[in-house]
Amino acid sequence: VKLAELGEFGLIDRIARRVPPAPGVLIGIGDDAASVCPEAGAVSLLTSDMLVEGVHFDLATTDPARLGRKSLSVNLSDIAAMGGIPRYVLLSLAIPPTLSAEFMEELVAGVTECAGRFGVTLVGGDTCAAQRDLVLSITVMGEQRPDRVVGRNGARPGELVFVTGCLGDSALGLRELQAGTRVSPAIDRHLDPLPRVEAGRQLAEAGIPTAMIDVSDGLLADLGHILDRSGCGAELESDLLPLSPYFRETAARHHAEPLELALAGGEDYELLFTAPPEREPALRRLMARTGLQVTGIGRITAEPGVRLRDRSGAPVAVSGRGYRHF
Amino acid sequence: VKLAELGEFGLIDRIARRVPPAPGVLIGIGDDAASVCPEAGAVSLLTSDMLVEGVHFDLATTDPARLGRKSLSVNLSDIAAMGGIPRYVLLSLAIPPTLSAEFMEELVAGVTECAGRFGVTLVGGDTCAAQRDLVLSITVMGEQRPDRVVGRNGARPGELVFVTGCLGDSALGLRELQAGTRVSPAIDRHLDPLPRVEAGRQLAEAGIPTAMIDVSDGLLADLGHILDRSGCGAELESDLLPLSPYFRETAARHHAEPLELALAGGEDYELLFTAPPEREPALRRLMARTGLQVTGIGRITAEPGVRLRDRSGAPVAVSGRGYRHF
Repeated sequence: VKLAELGEFGLIDRIARRVPPAPGVLIGIGDDAASVCPEAGAVSLLTSDMLVEGVHFDLATTDPARLGRKSLSVNLSDIAAMGGIPRYVLLSLAIPPTLSAEFMEELVAGVTECAGRFGVTLVGGDTCAAQRDLVLSITVMGEQRPDRVVGRNGARPGELVFVTGCLGDSALGLRELQAGTRVSPAIDRHLDPLPRVEAGRQLAEAGIPTAMIDVSDGLLADLGHILDRSGCGAELESDLLPLSPYFRETAARHHAEPLELALAGGEDYELLFTAPPEREPALRRLMARTGLQVTGIGRITAEPGVRLRDRSGAPVAVSGRGYRHF
Repeated sequence: VKLAELGEFGLIDRIARRVPPAPGVLIGIGDDAASVCPEAGAVSLLTSDMLVEGVHFDLATTDPARLGRKSLSVNLSDIAAMGGIPRYVLLSLAIPPTLSAEFMEELVAGVTECAGRFGVTLVGGDTCAAQRDLVLSITVMGEQRPDRVVGRNGARPGELVFVTGCLGDSALGLRELQAGTRVSPAIDRHLDPLPRVEAGRQLAEAGIPTAMIDVSDGLLADLGHILDRSGCGAELESDLLPLSPYFRETAARHHAEPLELALAGGEDYELLFTAPPEREPALRRLMARTGLQVTGIGRITAEPGVRLRDRSGAPVAVSGRGYRHF
């Protein structure tokens, strides 16, 4: 089916049929605006991300369902990084004439599948024509009690630096795609990242992180955002960086300096956070109870900048500086 | 200044400096998500609109400040159509390499100027690179007491149909631009529409509209959205349609059927609403007190479809069907 035959309102109808009714949604898709009921005592968390064909994704190496899931996941990751509970999503699409109604339906199915998995409801957005490139813009509204929300500016000297999961797989997956590989665990991580929504919420509700961010631009760049906002520096130990078995086996084949993929590759969508040393026992208990995987990788310093050292204390040089957007 | 020299974070810093602190904003620009405090007893209203270069605007005929204002205004218009009070805005930009930092700053200044005028605060968004076309995506969060929110589905047979302001000027302005004119009152209406935020709020708070929408696709198309959702039809009287003096003088020069511009031209951003006849005195009082301009143009019928008649009751044929997005 050509999208021109289905029309904008036909597409919106098909999208609306994918969305089950949800508590808190007074008016959903199909009005001038959605109307949602905020949780008593909670603040609203608002985040937007835009994904542009040829810049953020390549239709030759992803499929529409994965693209839909990833577009929502990167926004859920931002809510997770605040310690929030994601609730509602708005999906805006600028659609070039080359894409079929089936393609767009699969993309939307990817968004609604991911939404369902994380208890989030699609309540609105916009659809319009694009001349050439597909553009997706997603806004997610989340909630959390104000005393549990975690910003970027709370890190203090002496605190420890932690990260969830493993680093570098996504950047490795991108290298593999560029080299012609089509299937690997790292490619899955790149095309279909899993936002750490439960981890973010549990950490925040346990009162553990003093500052938190999701790793989208690369570990060093995103740690830099915390340090800038908090007015301090950090020392990291390179041997502590959590790397997956697949990464350890494979990364050297795709990059002369595998550590750079883990430090500056980006799109890991893991949570990077700081916490006082005295909260480490509470963190260990939370990890034991929930299966959460968290690794301590360094320490916040009063001296600005990031210093990377190996196990023996010798400085390690890194050339990567994170993803540049322009 | 080239945007590549300023960088994403340089641009975001410059944007953040344009935004004064606002009550209700706990965390604004520069974190993973904004954190805002909802009004007690209010529901949140969420709307998004995307504007694509070459589809929604032409950089040859608009300037960046106007483009910024219009991009926000069309979203404020959606909140107005719910009877809501707009509060927070997220601005996402996909920026092609051809645009300068000055251009982008003027565009953002247009957004923040419009935001300031309507008491709305820019709290976040996203900036990224585009390959070719500039894309703006704006999300606005508004608020209102749940019993005052006006949807599209409340129109009932016997109710009257009203519209604010005048119709057709924006479509006329677009025709003038296409014919090479650069300055006219109608071009101002097209490039710099004024969202009816106060009107929507006052109407809703007076409990007058049973259904409301803003005229973006064209009067007939948008009335059709109310009728579809409400399960009824309407009779309009063509001689009652509010037309500006400039439109009456000029429209016939640019279009063989001026009435079509007013009925199907689109982008008027006036409010179209229905109300029971017994609420007309309250509407007249509100108009007298506030200077609000509202015109009765017809009546809701049980019979579906829209019938247009002239003063004598004779049917009027119209060929236009509103803006088609694909």
